Formats: sequence, structure tokens, C-alpha cells
Amino acid sequence: MTPIEFAESKQDEFLNELLDFLRIPSISTDKESAPDVRRAADWLVSHLKGIGLKTVELHETGGHPIVYAEHLEAPGKPTVLLYGHYDVQPPDPLELWESPPFEPVVKDGKIFARGATDDKGQSFAHVKGLEAHLKATGTLPVNVKILIEGEEEVGSVHLDPWVEANREKLSCDAVLISDSSMYARGLPAIMYSLRGLAYFEIEIEGADHDLHSGLFGGAIPNPINELGRLIASFHDEKGHIAIPGFYDAVRELSQEERDGFAALPFDESEFVGSTGATAGKGEAGFTSLERVWARPTLDFNGIIGGFTGEGAKTVLPSKVRAKFSCRLVPDQTPKAIEELVAAHIRQTVHPSLKVKIEFHHGGRPVMTERDHFAVNSAMGALKKAWGVDPVFIRGGGSIPVVATFSDVLKVPTVLIGLGLNDDRLHSPNEKFDLENFFNGIKTSVYLWDELAQS
Amino acid sequence: MTPIEFAESKQDEFLNELLDFLRIPSISTDKESAPDVRRAADWLVSHLKGIGLKTVELHETGGHPIVYAEHLEAPGKPTVLLYGHYDVQPPDPLELWESPPFEPVVKDGKIFARGATDDKGQSFAHVKGLEAHLKATGTLPVNVKILIEGEEEVGSVHLDPWVEANREKLSCDAVLISDSSMYARGLPAIMYSLRGLAYFEIEIEGADHDLHSGLFGGAIPNPINELGRLIASFHDEKGHIAIPGFYDAVRELSQEERDGFAALPFDESEFVGSTGATAGKGEAGFTSLERVWARPTLDFNGIIGGFTGEGAKTVLPSKVRAKFSCRLVPDQTPKAIEELVAAHIRQTVHPSLKVKIEFHHGGRPVMTERDHFAVNSAMGALKKAWGVDPVFIRGGGSIPVVATFSDVLKVPTVLIGLGLNDDRLHSPNEKFDLENFFNGIKTSVYLWDELAQS
Repeated sequence: MTPIEFAESKQDEFLNELLDFLRIPSISTDKESAPDVRRAADWLVSHLKGIGLKTVELHETGGHPIVYAEHLEAPGKPTVLLYGHYDVQPPDPLELWESPPFEPVVKDGKIFARGATDDKGQSFAHVKGLEAHLKATGTLPVNVKILIEGEEEVGSVHLDPWVEANREKLSCDAVLISDSSMYARGLPAIMYSLRGLAYFEIEIEGADHDLHSGLFGGAIPNPINELGRLIASFHDEKGHIAIPGFYDAVRELSQEERDGFAALPFDESEFVGSTGATAGKGEAGFTSLERVWARPTLDFNGIIGGFTGEGAKTVLPSKVRAKFSCRLVPDQTPKAIEELVAAHIRQTVHPSLKVKIEFHHGGRPVMTERDHFAVNSAMGALKKAWGVDPVFIRGGGSIPVVATFSDVLKVPTVLIGLGLNDDRLHSPNEKFDLENFFNGIKTSVYLWDELAQS
Repeated sequence: MTPIEFAESKQDEFLNELLDFLRIPSISTDKESAPDVRRAADWLVSHLKGIGLKTVELHETGGHPIVYAEHLEAPGKPTVLLYGHYDVQPPDPLELWESPPFEPVVKDGKIFARGATDDKGQSFAHVKGLEAHLKATGTLPVNVKILIEGEEEVGSVHLDPWVEANREKLSCDAVLISDSSMYARGLPAIMYSLRGLAYFEIEIEGADHDLHSGLFGGAIPNPINELGRLIASFHDEKGHIAIPGFYDAVRELSQEERDGFAALPFDESEFVGSTGATAGKGEAGFTSLERVWARPTLDFNGIIGGFTGEGAKTVLPSKVRAKFSCRLVPDQTPKAIEELVAAHIRQTVHPSLKVKIEFHHGGRPVMTERDHFAVNSAMGALKKAWGVDPVFIRGGGSIPVVATFSDVLKVPTVLIGLGLNDDRLHSPNEKFDLENFFNGIKTSVYLWDELAQS
């Protein structure tokens, strides 16, 4: 029996095992759920041992444990690190669930449960893909390391130091993650780039206390007026960011990328309509997908200052505070952008006002070359499993763990989303389509072979 | 005995009467003090009758009563309306008073009590000036109407309708108010112009809910970025307001005014230093005094939108709200400015964002011509009483009652400040210098004669 035949013959069993996994309410944000989070880790350790992996370990952290396994029996073959997480979001608001979040039900070809797709279902598909190889052939065609953490939903607080402390142990040729979505139903995708982030907080102060605008208005600097001037200075009238040097490190989109994005099914009016905005708005010369996936931004996130109560108060405010952030694209770095932005602020704000700039935690953008062997393998596996050509996509957000692997392990990550955009992650009635679970397992079975042949 | 001799001979008595008046805690903001507020009105009615005024009336309003009196026995002579208020600010924080706020003490040549200068002391000086004439000559050299209200510290809520309903009764040639300060100790002044106000609230909306900046940032309009662009568009780099037509109705400063202001003792670094700002900032080509007294402004008063909590949240905000206001100068009108500002906003904000503009209550700027007979009379009286040439000043704020008299009675108001800038109005240890009280009485005595001769 081949691994793929094995996987096809065991669908019912695999599904029941996933349902068992989903029954454990491993809510990492909830202190009272800590024993359940540990129970999920223990369940996973025992399960990974059961499928025949050579080494399976539970690693304590300052928080929820990390489950680690490895099977390094393919000398000369690539080593791949599979990342996933066994913790889940809280299920609130409970009353909106049509069935209890931790009593999974299969209905209309979908598994309904908290964690069904994020990320128990997706990571379990790979576990089953590995099992198919181990049970059908007695080994794995590549070297595999598995890291499944229990704190993804609380910011992976203990992961970074653990990865750094275990740099050698985790050394590999590529990281694989299935914790995202396909481009659309029936259209699998590889996400080969993510944007990074630089996050700023600024405070501008004029007078050291609020003044009466009748007595001082016109002669004493107004920090909100001044912040407005600064905000406006960040962009030109074409929507380009007007900070000197801001685009210097930007890797421009290739014609191949642009053609690929343009060929994707994308409904601009549906995209804008989903936000409730009247129209899209952004950098001239780029489509919405290009703007979100491949262009850096500078967006204000919040602002507060002066009198914000009901009615009118003629105050000349002392201070205003604002938060803003830049989404970064390869090969920008948060540090370089922080310096450029800070220099621009100091040059732009009038010397009669005091400025404080604070840098919040940022993250580097990441890009996996599209001709990387792991990308090619994933493309091949997806095509075999789904019967259609997968597409290349990028992501506009950040997945911090990807930057961690890039920074610490110096290897690229391949993001193979097995979910769908309508899976209701973090919301009531989260679900995972059976088709996605079973095709995900097939994808995984093919993937290890593809990687071995690369 | 002349009126001035009478006044000089009665200083002790006048002072004791003022102390009696100050003992009544007529705190208009405090509901529990309502009986005391009425007691102050009754005390005043009885006092005005006692000095020999022909007609003295108590007028009920929806709130605290208005005290009205008139003495119209000088045919062919001008009719002047004297305005004041008998209510006072609350005395809190009580623990900072060195003597109880409603147990007046005279110490170091100053009367310490709540209301000492604002406005019991100042308006009482005029009552005593009238008494001096009535007692010394049996009549008044001009026709006088007196309106002393009890709600100035709560926004004169019932005054406007009362003035409108009594338009005929209040008809006069000029209004006199002593409810402000001299330019400096020993330097009396006439305030001949006040700025007006137009007050705006604006809301800019992009998406109809907050978005994830990773998923939408760069392609969906950001209302804070856009408001920043709008804020910046309001001024040019010289600090001039860049709204088309904004200055059309501005009466430019005359060379005489500019010379007068330049000659005033004014310490720029003390002015800026009192605010805690690093430096002044305003419209190019004008001094600080000119900016505050005679130039219109556009100052943001408050702003709020998006994420304003601790730390970083990568939200693309749906909305931002801001309040801003224009101080207006003669001959601008709130209505015209509202229209110009609204037109500029609609033309400036990108059509992909929704804008709501709200107009709060504004007020017209006022100006009393410097060659008006009542101004000349007040200048003459101040010079005689203080022995120095009084100066012409303007005010940067608004005194709403002045606009009411201007709008309803169509007459100018002469503002003769008898207080000092260090009188601690609205603060603990409010005081009124004895010199100011007695010279104020003298000013009033001379004033009625000056007006009669004008």
C-alpha cells in the first residue's frame, strides 16, 4: 500500500482522531484552561509517538509547553521543520455558536469546532501525512522536525527565546507552516512573502498646560495643527510616502508577479465593499492587491489630544499623541525605517514644539524565493492533491514566527494555507471543510515525496 | 460738596458696604446656593433704592433674577446702560484660601473674597460713583440704565431672551462694562474690540468598521491620514489661513493701532514663558499681541480616533473626530466663515471618505470705534482718576454679552477694566486692590460728567 493509498483508506479514523484533539479546550489566553492546554500537549506527544516518530519531546517554557519531535533517517535528503500550534482562541461569544465549540460536529461536509482550522486541523493534516508514510513505508523520505507550540494565540511569548536557545536542534533547510488560507475555494496557493512592521508612537507638546484659545490662540503653537502638518508631510498627492529614502530598499514587483496577481480572481468592488468604504484609495500606479501585498504603507492607527468631550471648549491644547505604523516590504528593515521616519519628524516639526518618538516592537518583512526547492515541492504537492495549478500570493500582514525563523534559523518559510477565507477563525462557528482536511493530508503525503526528490 | 469730594469722604463706608455685599455667597453654579443668589439680588435692589435711583426692579427669569434700575432725568443727554453681575464663581478648592472666601478681609491694601473683583467689586464701584452724584447733586448728569444679572458665571443662560424681550426698555447710546482688567498695575485701558468665534466639529469616516492594517493597509482610505491632510491645508507655511476668502472681511490693523500696541509694556518671553511653550508661533508679519488681539485663527481644540490605549494595535481606523475653532476679528461673521470653511473641507477631503461637519454656537467679533463719544468719555475719566494716559487694548477672547448688546441693542460697548491681571479670578484668594476700588469709584464719578459733556 502506498502512503497515499494508506491515507485514503484511513479517512474516517483520521477524522475521529482530529475530533478527539478538538474536544480538548486548549484556550491559551485563559488561565483557568491551563490544565486543558497541557492535556492537549500531552495528547499530541502521545499521538506523535503512536504514529512512529523516532523522537518526541515535551519542552517546558515559562508558559504552555512546546511539543517537539524529529525523525532524521534520510541522510542526504533535506531537513524540514514543520511548525504549528495546538492552542486555540477563546470561544466567546458562546451564545453565537450553533453547536458547542468543544463538542465538534460534522455537518454539510464541514467540521465545526474551535480550532478546527486554526490550527489543530491544519497541523493535524501534516501529522497524518507523516503517519501515512511511516505506516506504509516504515520511514520518512526526508528529515523532519516538528515544533507545535501552545502559545500562538497569546503572541508566542516563550517561542522566540526557545528557538534561539535551540538554534542547533532546529537547524533545517526550510520551514513549513499550514496556518492560513488558500487563495479561494478550490484554488490552492503558496504565500511567499509577508509584510513587516515598524510601529511608532509620537507625542507633540506646545504649551505645558491647556490654554484659553482667546488669550493665546494665534501666538502659541498648537500641537494638533502641527501634527496635522506632519501627517500631511508623510505622503505626496499621489499617495507615495514622501519620507526621503523610504523606498530605497524596496524590492519592486517583477512583471511576472504583477501578471500573476492580475490573473487572480479578484473583485475590487467586493474587496472595498467588505470594508464599508465608499472607494479604495492608495498609492498611484498599483492595484489594490499590489498595494496590500507588495507596497509599504504609513497608516495612522490612533490619535488623541485636547478636548474630546461633548460640545465646545475653546482650549488651545497642550499635547497630542498618535500611533502610526508602516507595513514594510522586502528588503526594508524596521530599524532603517525607524531612523528615516524619526529624522523626517525631527526635520518637519517646528522647533517651537517638543516631540517625543517611541518605537514599538516591529518585525521584518519576509520573502521566500519563488524558485526555492521547498516552494517547488509545495507547488507540486498542492497540484497533485487538488488537481489544479496553485497560485503564488503574498500576505499583507505579518506572521511573527516566520520572521523569527528567518532571523534565527536563517531559512525561508513556505506558507501552505489549507483553510478557506470563510472559516471564521477567532469567531463563533469556526469550521474546517472535510475536503480541505482530506486534501490537506494528501498534500502532506505528496509533499514529503516532492521534497525528497528536489 | 462735589460728587468727587463726596466719594472721597465716604471711602470707609463704601468699603464696608462692599464687604457686606461680598459676604453673600451668591454662587450661581450651585443649586443649593439659590437662596443666597436671590439674597444678593434683594440686597442689591434695596441698595440701589437707597442711593436714590428712580426706578429699581427685580425681574424673574427661568433662573436667577435680573436686577434692573434706571434714572432718566437728563433730557438731551446720552443714555448709557451699565452692565454687571452679582453672581460669583464657586470658591473650590476651599483649602487653598488663606481666609474664608465669604468672610472678606482687608489686608495689605487688598480685599480678599470670592467676587471681590469678579464682578461685585467692579460693578459696585459704579454704583458708588452714581451714589456720589445722586447724594451730592440730587440727580445724575446723564440718563442711566443698570442691568446686573445673576447668571454670568453659568453662561448668562436667561439674559439673551430677556434682553431681546426688553429691547425698548434697554435702548441706549452705549453700554458700559467693568468686568475685566486694566492693562497693567497703574495703567488703565479701554478694550475696544473682542474676537468672535466659529466652532466646528468634524467627523471623517473611511471603512465602516476598524480594519486590520495588514489585510487592508495601503488600499483603503485612512481617515486620520486624511484629516491630517485637511489640517495641514488650513494654513500655509507662513501661518496664514489658506482657506479662500477667509480674510476678505478682516479689518486690517491701522498703523495707529500697531504703534499703540508696540508701545505697550509687553515682555514676549514672559508671555511665552507663562505657557510653558518653547517659543511663540503664529502668522508671519505680526507681533504676539497683534496675533492674539487682532488676527483671526484656526486652532484645533481636540481630536480622537482609532486605537488610543496602551501599546500597539495595527488597526486601520474607521473614523476620526475633531473639534476646531476660528477666533474671528471684525468684520468677519461666524456664518460667512462657517460657509467658507465647510466649502474648503468638502473640496479638500478625498471623495473616498465621508465627512460630517457640525457647527457649534459661535459669536460675532465686536469693535467699538475708538472715536465714539463713550470711549472718549471713558478715556477722560480714567485719566482723571489715575493720573496717567489710558491705553487702547483689544481682547482675544469673547464676552458673549457684548455681542448680545451689539446684536440686539445695536450699540457699542465700552469695556473699562478696573481689575488687575493678578486678581485670581475663578481661583482661590481672589482679591481686589483697594486702590482699584477707590480709583474705580472716582473713574465712575468722572465718567458720568464726561458723558454729559460729550
